[in-house]
Amino acid sequence: MSSPSRYLVSAPGKVILFGEHAVVYGKTAIAGSLDGLRTYVFFEKRDDGFLELNLPKLGLQHPLLWPISALPYSKVTTVSKENNSLQESTINEELLKSLKEIVLDGNAGNKNNQEINELQQVAASVFLYLYASLEDKQTSWCGTTVHIASNLPVGAGLGSSAAYSVCLATGLLLVLGHITIPNYGEKVGGFNISDSSSPMNLINRWAFQAEKIIHGTPSGIDNAVATYGGAVSFSKGVMENVIEFQSLRFLLTNTKVPRNTRTLVANVRKLHDKCPHIVVPILEAIEGISSKFKEIINSGDSQKELNQNIEAIELIDFNHYLLNSLRVGHPSIDKVREIAAQYSLHSKLTGAGGGGCVLTLLRDDVPNDDIMKIMLNLTSIGFECFETKVGGHGISILDASTISKQEFLSSENIQQFSGWKHFN
Amino acid sequence: MSSPSRYLVSAPGKVILFGEHAVVYGKTAIAGSLDGLRTYVFFEKRDDGFLELNLPKLGLQHPLLWPISALPYSKVTTVSKENNSLQESTINEELLKSLKEIVLDGNAGNKNNQEINELQQVAASVFLYLYASLEDKQTSWCGTTVHIASNLPVGAGLGSSAAYSVCLATGLLLVLGHITIPNYGEKVGGFNISDSSSPMNLINRWAFQAEKIIHGTPSGIDNAVATYGGAVSFSKGVMENVIEFQSLRFLLTNTKVPRNTRTLVANVRKLHDKCPHIVVPILEAIEGISSKFKEIINSGDSQKELNQNIEAIELIDFNHYLLNSLRVGHPSIDKVREIAAQYSLHSKLTGAGGGGCVLTLLRDDVPNDDIMKIMLNLTSIGFECFETKVGGHGISILDASTISKQEFLSSENIQQFSGWKHFN
Repeated sequence: MSSPSRYLVSAPGKVILFGEHAVVYGKTAIAGSLDGLRTYVFFEKRDDGFLELNLPKLGLQHPLLWPISALPYSKVTTVSKENNSLQESTINEELLKSLKEIVLDGNAGNKNNQEINELQQVAASVFLYLYASLEDKQTSWCGTTVHIASNLPVGAGLGSSAAYSVCLATGLLLVLGHITIPNYGEKVGGFNISDSSSPMNLINRWAFQAEKIIHGTPSGIDNAVATYGGAVSFSKGVMENVIEFQSLRFLLTNTKVPRNTRTLVANVRKLHDKCPHIVVPILEAIEGISSKFKEIINSGDSQKELNQNIEAIELIDFNHYLLNSLRVGHPSIDKVREIAAQYSLHSKLTGAGGGGCVLTLLRDDVPNDDIMKIMLNLTSIGFECFETKVGGHGISILDASTISKQEFLSSENIQQFSGWKHFN
Repeated sequence: MSSPSRYLVSAPGKVILFGEHAVVYGKTAIAGSLDGLRTYVFFEKRDDGFLELNLPKLGLQHPLLWPISALPYSKVTTVSKENNSLQESTINEELLKSLKEIVLDGNAGNKNNQEINELQQVAASVFLYLYASLEDKQTSWCGTTVHIASNLPVGAGLGSSAAYSVCLATGLLLVLGHITIPNYGEKVGGFNISDSSSPMNLINRWAFQAEKIIHGTPSGIDNAVATYGGAVSFSKGVMENVIEFQSLRFLLTNTKVPRNTRTLVANVRKLHDKCPHIVVPILEAIEGISSKFKEIINSGDSQKELNQNIEAIELIDFNHYLLNSLRVGHPSIDKVREIAAQYSLHSKLTGAGGGGCVLTLLRDDVPNDDIMKIMLNLTSIGFECFETKVGGHGISILDASTISKQEFLSSENIQQFSGWKHFN
């Protein structure tokens, strides 16, 4: 059987349900995948020995193009090729430096003399780094064209870079013959991160490498959620699947208020150092929220019961107020809470705070009419809303041999192509 | 020297600065006296053997009148007369029951057939209870007329009942010859609660008895603050003076939103019992706030420096957010915070929350113009505002021989009569 000439790969964004900021101090955070808010990457076979990367979402009007032969293979070492453990993986800085130069080199790829900003350079370097590290001549493809599409807001704390990293890792592992399309259709959830030979874990490790290039010292939560889907609990570097977690329905509101995650994290640190007798117990209380949530999940309530669960609602309020006490709230977040509260719905910030995104739990008994009114109200004041579920599929792969590039680029809903496969 | 024929007694209201609700769980609360928000009681000598009580503030249009001879002296026991310790004091329930009946008995005092509600009945019973217990025939007064005036809102959590109790105890101890007017003029602050023979401690013990009649199981904070003034720290039944505390300038806003303290306290208890792993650390964090405040006070900063102290401002915010996390916040409280924040001022609820009163710290550098604007803004939406200092005088006593009842009743500012004396 010949391998497909086109692949479509998709991975979800993530939200932190509970424990943001506290996770920096070794407390438990719980994050889940965002249903319907995904990045999609289309991989198409070429025969001319070129790599083509299209990043319209990052503002690049024209494709970036490089001959495969221009990659600095001599700098690809065993260290960067053998990526068997999340803990031990390190970035081959020499290789990365060469690739960054290639990205900026007009003769190599930047045919149209586009200005390339830092974000675009990093995104392109990640692509080339994975390609160079994973190429092992087993592929039937002599070149690849890659198109990125996404409905995930970039820089809103929703894991857009991890979704991109996971898609690139998955697609390149497929294209370069390391893994094959799985047989499974509709399964969701569960992972065994200690099984280093599983394709999902291989993808997660390479995506983590990509995240390191993008972020320096990522926690690994974002790529794990984008890879495995569902929800994970994360504490002191140890990640575990949140058993029995299916999905919770949320309204996700992007206030679009820009904030600097690094500054917010640093300010909490200052508060912590100045008032440890106040902040340490607050972090302890946040740990209590994550524990209580896991307890509710593991008590075996069905998704429906969970959505109605008064305790889950209380945890949202608790975490909201405690994040405020760490001074990472913002009037825009309070505004979302206020509007949702008019319909008896409860909200909390998600991510770093200081603006950014807000999660509003949608209980099953909320009339659609109410949700429409809330969304109308929120969008009328300049916010962006998504009705989403937390805890759906991670990586999805589609044999896209019968889908043309034009069909991919013009599709309003890429998820609706039929035949998506999942590893778990 | 003959004793005065009229006394004027005054005692302040109180606010809780930090630790409300947490104090129920053995954490430290810090409360201070309210400068300028006081209850004033005028005691006038009679020769006809009648006791007359005027309570216009509680809605009683006409005086209540009883012959001294109608009091059930046979029920006054050694237990109720000897009140040497706060801990051991108990209410003589049999005496109290008789007095409550006397209050309701139209023939005894209720000459004008006024309807007497429960609050009025309790206020009158407290007066008769203290009179009956303290009468020991050493007085030259054959009867007393008592007029109450107050600018303290009733039922707003500002300790109006304690101010009333302290004034009654002080006035009756004076009238019945147990104590005399002190010599001191302008001194403020400091108390030695273990010295059972001091007049202040005697007053405080009798006021505590009165508070027991009114509230059942009072903490003793309110009467201590009304008696000693200044600020006290209170934890697990142990009260201590907050050393070096002089005064902090606040705007006190009464949102007039009615709330039920008992229900609010019970709801926090439910939350505590349901989510101990969250609520226990929150209470610990509140303890951290009170400790930090005492640390700041004891570090020897002057009042001026304290008002400017960024850390004190941070404690206000911390406590506000943590009280919200215990669900005792209210939109009206947020509204006050929002308006004050427009002038970079910080606020927290004080007392039980769920409406009630809000404290806004007035730094020394705030222009009076700003304070006027804030007060205008707050009153325009129906709130009541007082500019006050926390940490002023406790009991004040004035020989009122030269002040007529009419002068007392028509005075706009009773505090401005000259010659007030203080015990400390």
